[in-house]
Amino acid sequence: MKTKFILFLFISSIIFTSCESPNSADESSSTTESVVSDPLPSWNEGISKQSILDFVAATTTEGNPDFVAPADRIATFDNDGCLWSEQPFYFQLQFSLDRIKAMSPDHPEWSKDPLLAAAIAGDVEKVFSFGEHGLLKLVMVTHSGMTEDEFNTEVLDWINSARHPKTNLLYKEMVYQPMLEVLDYLRANGFKTFIVSGGGIDFMRPWSQEVYGIPSEQVIGSSIKSKFEMVDGKGTIIKLPELDFIDDKDGKPVGIHQYIGKRPIAAFGNSDGDLQMLQYSAGTEGKSLQVYVHHTDADREWAYDRGSPIGGFDKGWDYATENGWTIVDMKNDWKKIYPKE
Amino acid sequence: MKTKFILFLFISSIIFTSCESPNSADESSSTTESVVSDPLPSWNEGISKQSILDFVAATTTEGNPDFVAPADRIATFDNDGCLWSEQPFYFQLQFSLDRIKAMSPDHPEWSKDPLLAAAIAGDVEKVFSFGEHGLLKLVMVTHSGMTEDEFNTEVLDWINSARHPKTNLLYKEMVYQPMLEVLDYLRANGFKTFIVSGGGIDFMRPWSQEVYGIPSEQVIGSSIKSKFEMVDGKGTIIKLPELDFIDDKDGKPVGIHQYIGKRPIAAFGNSDGDLQMLQYSAGTEGKSLQVYVHHTDADREWAYDRGSPIGGFDKGWDYATENGWTIVDMKNDWKKIYPKE
Repeated sequence: MKTKFILFLFISSIIFTSCESPNSADESSSTTESVVSDPLPSWNEGISKQSILDFVAATTTEGNPDFVAPADRIATFDNDGCLWSEQPFYFQLQFSLDRIKAMSPDHPEWSKDPLLAAAIAGDVEKVFSFGEHGLLKLVMVTHSGMTEDEFNTEVLDWINSARHPKTNLLYKEMVYQPMLEVLDYLRANGFKTFIVSGGGIDFMRPWSQEVYGIPSEQVIGSSIKSKFEMVDGKGTIIKLPELDFIDDKDGKPVGIHQYIGKRPIAAFGNSDGDLQMLQYSAGTEGKSLQVYVHHTDADREWAYDRGSPIGGFDKGWDYATENGWTIVDMKNDWKKIYPKE
Repeated sequence: MKTKFILFLFISSIIFTSCESPNSADESSSTTESVVSDPLPSWNEGISKQSILDFVAATTTEGNPDFVAPADRIATFDNDGCLWSEQPFYFQLQFSLDRIKAMSPDHPEWSKDPLLAAAIAGDVEKVFSFGEHGLLKLVMVTHSGMTEDEFNTEVLDWINSARHPKTNLLYKEMVYQPMLEVLDYLRANGFKTFIVSGGGIDFMRPWSQEVYGIPSEQVIGSSIKSKFEMVDGKGTIIKLPELDFIDDKDGKPVGIHQYIGKRPIAAFGNSDGDLQMLQYSAGTEGKSLQVYVHHTDADREWAYDRGSPIGGFDKGWDYATENGWTIVDMKNDWKKIYPKE
């Protein structure tokens, strides 16, 4: 598996002018008809933007043969590399490194473990040398052994303070403005939006509402096990250092089936880990939308695809091309990347 | 575990007069003030009804010290015996018996298995003699080996046709009118309502929206595993004969943590299998509500509690009494049981 870590943003004031923007005035001057404003203002005109607009129009217009009842308007989004950046490595890994450093004074035994010692020292390269098994172990150690309330507090503290070394932005500010607009646009049209990420479910949930407008119960991700206990007379969930579910590749449609119980009619991803989710969505009887975000902007973000160790886009690229799915070219399709840009 | 099976109702026209009912006229004759109508018309006045009304008023009135933001207004409901009847045995078991009979011609090998042979013959007593392991095996056999779409169709066919031998009502008509009113009342006050049942998640989801107004993504239950496969070029979920999760007792708060990621501030149950869910809810920092439905009406429904093999209410009764939780007396608190009564 690719241990997908993730998450964050912080747009308590998402400047989203879709409904209140003044008429984008052209020749017509003072008609009383209201001119529909652009719901995706950070998107350049083109087939990517148009495919999203066309899909929403077709599925939400009563009388249209592709109309879909609101209850079935399910849209799923990968997180890392689709809603926020994921380079030079998943943000959740940075959280784990910061956590293990903070926790290490209480765990002198960790210094004898080569992986954990490397993590405490912040030696990312060495941590990676232990492979996926090593990353998983690091998550287990740093995300368990405490109550859900304690862990939520740790995540919130981090997401509200930690900054990315390249941009100096808070990690939660490194979300994609164009994708925030898609989320809002879909919700305004009766869609229910879900995150379906390889990243840790417990890591994303504490801030998904604030950053994406997605409540915790609409976040699906990889998970570790937990148990229930009465602690000081209070019913409490305690996180266990045991893997429960990997929400990646084949796991994504399985997770969607488990959590939602319906096939999404729109699915957004950016890597091979999302291919099965998009295939599952494409299996819808009626009209559906599959969108891949392609990282093509080395200046404003990062450029990577085939063979990238993070967010590799090989099989997904081929399948998307063969099947006529929408492939978003970040460099050319997006006017801006981050809200604060 | 107590293999909790469940489910059903059918109230496409829930006659719920809360908002449109005429003034429940008293002395005051023609004031222009609108009299607030009763949101729980099938409940007799008393401490049970009042505890629900008081809780909602306190948590949804801005300025009240117990006010709870809408995003945290999570309410969870057991299904069997809490939202619909569960006697003489869980309705999902009847579904399984009907299924295995229908499937048996394609599986001559089942006749050599004593449990399955008994199930095919409809010998419920003998099926029960195999204990929980036997019930679980019966569910595995009848709920797997097909796609999710195929299974959904089977469930819908059954729920729209099968009738209870005692009442001759469709199973989905044997839901509790007073609880439908509670569901509606909570939703009208910004609560998100969830089912958290020991019953099979795949069995409840196809009809939860129609019967309870609860969408599939807000149904949590026991589950079997599934896998993703491309079938005829179409991304497809296939149900596997392998247990995934038992959503009962300790499993209920674990399931809530997994699916919702928030502590419910209101929880409703009827048996010992719900105790931990209610304890988890009671661990909320602010105001919370715990309600047990006590089956006391042998004439209109069934009367059972301590020691009942289905819906046993022992530890839960003791804990609820000691902690001042609301215990609904069906016979005295409810004006009617089923909508069609």
